[in-house]
Amino acid sequence: MQAAVLTAPTRIEIQARPVPEATGRDVLVKVMAVGICGSDIHYYEHGRIGPYVVKGPIILGHECAGVVVAVGEQVRTLQPGDRVAVEPGVTCGYCAFCKEGRYNLCPEVQFLATPPYDGAFVQYIKHREDFLYRIPDTMSYETAALCEPFSVGVHAVRRARLQPGETVAIIGMGPVGLMAVVAARAFGAGRIVVSDREPLRLEAALRLGADAAVDASAADGLAQLRGGADGSGVHVALETAGHPAALQTALGSLRRGGRLAIVGLPPQDEIPLNVPFIADNEADIYGVFRYANTYPQGLALLAAGLADTDGVMITDRYPLEQAQQAMERARTNKSGSLKVVVYPNGPV
Amino acid sequence: MQAAVLTAPTRIEIQARPVPEATGRDVLVKVMAVGICGSDIHYYEHGRIGPYVVKGPIILGHECAGVVVAVGEQVRTLQPGDRVAVEPGVTCGYCAFCKEGRYNLCPEVQFLATPPYDGAFVQYIKHREDFLYRIPDTMSYETAALCEPFSVGVHAVRRARLQPGETVAIIGMGPVGLMAVVAARAFGAGRIVVSDREPLRLEAALRLGADAAVDASAADGLAQLRGGADGSGVHVALETAGHPAALQTALGSLRRGGRLAIVGLPPQDEIPLNVPFIADNEADIYGVFRYANTYPQGLALLAAGLADTDGVMITDRYPLEQAQQAMERARTNKSGSLKVVVYPNGPV
Amino acid sequence: MQAAVLTAPTRIEIQARPVPEATGRDVLVKVMAVGICGSDIHYYEHGRIGPYVVKGPIILGHECAGVVVAVGEQVRTLQPGDRVAVEPGVTCGYCAFCKEGRYNLCPEVQFLATPPYDGAFVQYIKHREDFLYRIPDTMSYETAALCEPFSVGVHAVRRARLQPGETVAIIGMGPVGLMAVVAARAFGAGRIVVSDREPLRLEAALRLGADAAVDASAADGLAQLRGGADGSGVHVALETAGHPAALQTALGSLRRGGRLAIVGLPPQDEIPLNVPFIADNEADIYGVFRYANTYPQGLALLAAGLADTDGVMITDRYPLEQAQQAMERARTNKSGSLKVVVYPNGPV
Amino acid sequence: MQAAVLTAPTRIEIQARPVPEATGRDVLVKVMAVGICGSDIHYYEHGRIGPYVVKGPIILGHECAGVVVAVGEQVRTLQPGDRVAVEPGVTCGYCAFCKEGRYNLCPEVQFLATPPYDGAFVQYIKHREDFLYRIPDTMSYETAALCEPFSVGVHAVRRARLQPGETVAIIGMGPVGLMAVVAARAFGAGRIVVSDREPLRLEAALRLGADAAVDASAADGLAQLRGGADGSGVHVALETAGHPAALQTALGSLRRGGRLAIVGLPPQDEIPLNVPFIADNEADIYGVFRYANTYPQGLALLAAGLADTDGVMITDRYPLEQAQQAMERARTNKSGSLKVVVYPNGPV
Repeated sequence: MQAAVLTAPTRIEIQARPVPEATGRDVLVKVMAVGICGSDIHYYEHGRIGPYVVKGPIILGHECAGVVVAVGEQVRTLQPGDRVAVEPGVTCGYCAFCKEGRYNLCPEVQFLATPPYDGAFVQYIKHREDFLYRIPDTMSYETAALCEPFSVGVHAVRRARLQPGETVAIIGMGPVGLMAVVAARAFGAGRIVVSDREPLRLEAALRLGADAAVDASAADGLAQLRGGADGSGVHVALETAGHPAALQTALGSLRRGGRLAIVGLPPQDEIPLNVPFIADNEADIYGVFRYANTYPQGLALLAAGLADTDGVMITDRYPLEQAQQAMERARTNKSGSLKVVVYPNGPV
Repeated sequence: MQAAVLTAPTRIEIQARPVPEATGRDVLVKVMAVGICGSDIHYYEHGRIGPYVVKGPIILGHECAGVVVAVGEQVRTLQPGDRVAVEPGVTCGYCAFCKEGRYNLCPEVQFLATPPYDGAFVQYIKHREDFLYRIPDTMSYETAALCEPFSVGVHAVRRARLQPGETVAIIGMGPVGLMAVVAARAFGAGRIVVSDREPLRLEAALRLGADAAVDASAADGLAQLRGGADGSGVHVALETAGHPAALQTALGSLRRGGRLAIVGLPPQDEIPLNVPFIADNEADIYGVFRYANTYPQGLALLAAGLADTDGVMITDRYPLEQAQQAMERARTNKSGSLKVVVYPNGPV
Repeated sequence: MQAAVLTAPTRIEIQARPVPEATGRDVLVKVMAVGICGSDIHYYEHGRIGPYVVKGPIILGHECAGVVVAVGEQVRTLQPGDRVAVEPGVTCGYCAFCKEGRYNLCPEVQFLATPPYDGAFVQYIKHREDFLYRIPDTMSYETAALCEPFSVGVHAVRRARLQPGETVAIIGMGPVGLMAVVAARAFGAGRIVVSDREPLRLEAALRLGADAAVDASAADGLAQLRGGADGSGVHVALETAGHPAALQTALGSLRRGGRLAIVGLPPQDEIPLNVPFIADNEADIYGVFRYANTYPQGLALLAAGLADTDGVMITDRYPLEQAQQAMERARTNKSGSLKVVVYPNGPV
Repeated sequence: MQAAVLTAPTRIEIQARPVPEATGRDVLVKVMAVGICGSDIHYYEHGRIGPYVVKGPIILGHECAGVVVAVGEQVRTLQPGDRVAVEPGVTCGYCAFCKEGRYNLCPEVQFLATPPYDGAFVQYIKHREDFLYRIPDTMSYETAALCEPFSVGVHAVRRARLQPGETVAIIGMGPVGLMAVVAARAFGAGRIVVSDREPLRLEAALRLGADAAVDASAADGLAQLRGGADGSGVHVALETAGHPAALQTALGSLRRGGRLAIVGLPPQDEIPLNVPFIADNEADIYGVFRYANTYPQGLALLAAGLADTDGVMITDRYPLEQAQQAMERARTNKSGSLKVVVYPNGPV
């Protein structure tokens, strides 16, 4: 089979690899669609994200969906022909975090395209049964792959305990921010205000359900975010931009007793935050690392057709052989591309 | 009656004031013991705390207890002779925060000794019935007054959702930090590790129930705090010192999925915090502003005799006429004094 | 002014009453629409509901909205001309329940049309400012009045901690059950299945957002309710019928780890429940008594136009003089009428 | 090795069995102490508990502790010589319940001494690594075995969200009820009132930390339970007796807004409960089925020496060969025996 392998920074080669064999609880999945994520681009350019370092050739891609072609002898819930969304992180199931339901914190997780584990820019992957989720016939593979960034949004609004009718500010309208708009809408948010510098992204946010879009470079951006019903700040803010000023804006947008989820990973470690503001207002701040227990709910919400996610999100499509071009497109066209999708087994 | 009035920075005069009249739901309380808090000292020295500015003569003191001497015509739950703890903030009862049970965020709260409201360095105060709590005959007025800083600790461990058996780090062993040790113990904490620079305070913490004390100036202070059972960090950290390095230490002491409550108010606004640490580890951070719904529980816990709070905490005693000396003592003897208590109606 | 007064069981007389005077924090509201509730009918017929006994002439009606015509001297948030929804229970604000945010449990609540307090079948009422909520110009008085039964539904789904995407069974499609469908939808419920014996009500439920309707008299009714995605029961069940068999069905519809909210009040005290089922499956059961902190959220959700509530719910309209006929209509036409509305100040 | 095998109702034979082999993640544990539980006695007498039916010879006993003697090749956290508490239910780790942290609801759990799985009245068992917990040298095997019924108590007070200082009623002072007293104390409960018919058990409860003991046959038993601080009922009630009247009493002991955990499994299915009481008072009722994520916390709490659990609880000791006598003792001496312990490898 063919695989798109990152062999050096910004260099992807198409190589032949043996099709993996699915034994035990593993399932062989023919990969039908893979979205490119910011983390893929980061590994592609820089060869590392914080402590995760690429030390040899690696296959990128972790937002994916496909069809089952073979199953291990212990698999009971899936069979060949089943169309599935792939939750990319396979956890140990034994540690205290797994036992307590916070398996995203499992120290032994094997996550697609996080070194040293290969990802999904390849024709077939094997994956443990319990991290594959059957999707309805009416759901596209692209939507199923979008369940990955959507899961981040779902996890963030859960962590922030968003209640129906509450006001929400979302900072950063990259793909994660955009899918967080859909998540907030699904959770019954009242007014959703979003912020970014790119008009295209703001427009996409409005199409996905945001109520108002704020130019992040506007002098009164914070005031606009705080506007809401009464100018007193929002109940919940989500920071997805991974940028210090964005984080400060997100915090500053909160009303008294408000809650902030930090989703974006900034490049530097230390970011100045207004601590008296946090204490005086009894803000809650929640770090968000990936997600847990989001796929069944996420797929159900996406299946309900909350928004035209494929139509708005997917701007570029490439076959596997052009994975390099796909990465370059995603890397360089930030004002024009939202989600770039790679099809390892031909266009759907 | 006599009152100790702050007439200028660091100048307290004893003045005659009329005894207030208790009407409606108000109760007249003869003040028997008042603890001096760090915020009292701050107003005494600087005339302001953030947005709260002393603009004229003010009576300080808000940690107090006393005995009912008269009641307004609508009062139904108290009568003269009842010994009471005083919860110092009287809230509006009408705003959304009051309605939702977070009345500490009420924007119209009238809080003893927070400008423009006078406090308790005076022989009699009037106070609304629903913020007075009858105490058992066996409880001293000092203990009842300590229920105020204890409430901060109770609120902090509640906000941090401390579970029995969990490990706790508490940074800063001033009176609030010390009472937070008692609160963590009452909530069933497992190992409690504390940190401060003053040996006297560390020793007091151990007497109040801490399991280990760390010299905050030690090079391996953070490692000692993270030590716990397995070197992997604590479940819950409380920052009570109001100091940037202390806050960074508190955050750094958390295990994955840990929770931090920010209790101390630092002098500056912007403090650099390790945001990737927050996100990667899914830390929760909770601002803490005073407390709500803590008095009944707090008094019950103190009445249960969890620790010799009076014996450990109360280091200095002054009559009302020496309020100035009491303030100076509290201000200048930080390595020797813990809680300085003023007795407006003679020694108990 | 005119008032419709219940002077004896099933006898309502139109009497002249003085217009009340609004002082202090009270507001004088011109009542524009009042929905008839099952409890009104019960008082009308039986003169009591459990411990609440009608001992003299009483004015019924508590689901209402109107327009401010005068305000007491301490009122700050409202002024004449403001259109308002009326939250009918005025609480003490002083007890532990009020302080903790569960003011619906306040033992001193004064609730419209719960003896001995008069209700809203009258041209003007006075009501405390903090239980009146301004509504947008675009919202009808009928919708604002429907916020009362809607609040019951909102409170029930909150109590049951309904999460987006979860499956829900709602038993009993009277007005409260129907508004609970709207609430579950607003909270992002996945599949909603409802049950009743009246085809008209099942049809109304489908129009308000239910996914499937089950005839409560069908032999396989429980199996249909448990059906959901996989036949394994629902995440959340709401019982609104106040009938033993309905409650047993609601409990039996739960999946493992499911949650049941009991909204309906059955006529008898003791109802046999399957306790081993509760224990084995770790079911949660939540009693629901009225609601708290629902109006701002409820009005925001209704304003968002989730469903054509007026169009579906309001089947009959009467002027105040025909309050008796309105009550009779509501009492006798259970298979044809949903919400009967009385207009004390002429048709809107 | 020797095993005590139930070959027919009330007949236990000592049989020779091969020592199991520990491979993969399994660990071979030499069983040092096994407590007899009410469920063991039930299988011994009746051959079934609800849907769980004994269909052939079975080894009973699931409250146990021992020492590791061999480990499978994938085991990383334990080694021979480690003393361990055994959590008896080994779960699948793959289902939604396991993933969400409620693994006690796992439909594929393999639980010691629940048919068709053998238990611990045997010299050696193999058990998966992640359900074994190292205990300190200072902890007895008996205490480690008591962590099993203690876990039920911990899970119950967690489910009931017991807060420090709250009042608690616990109905039924069998071993689970008694250990629930210890759990409630560990969670910081205020006044704990217990109820039973056996004086010995009430006395044991007082020794373990209960504040008051009520004779369940007293005419004013319910009033005594409701007594608490103010006669208004308790915050939390736990029913552990598995008896209809006990459950009705537990429910009736609640204050407004109180919470009831149902721990005991009654013999019949349908029990009449006062539903208007549940609704009017907004009671919460929580079914409790075994426990999850309790062992690390439970062992930490027991290690802290909260109560003399061994001294109070363990009344009878038998070697494995006398397993039959041990069962008979437990079955027949309910007014004299609390926990009967079997030692498969000689007295400790």
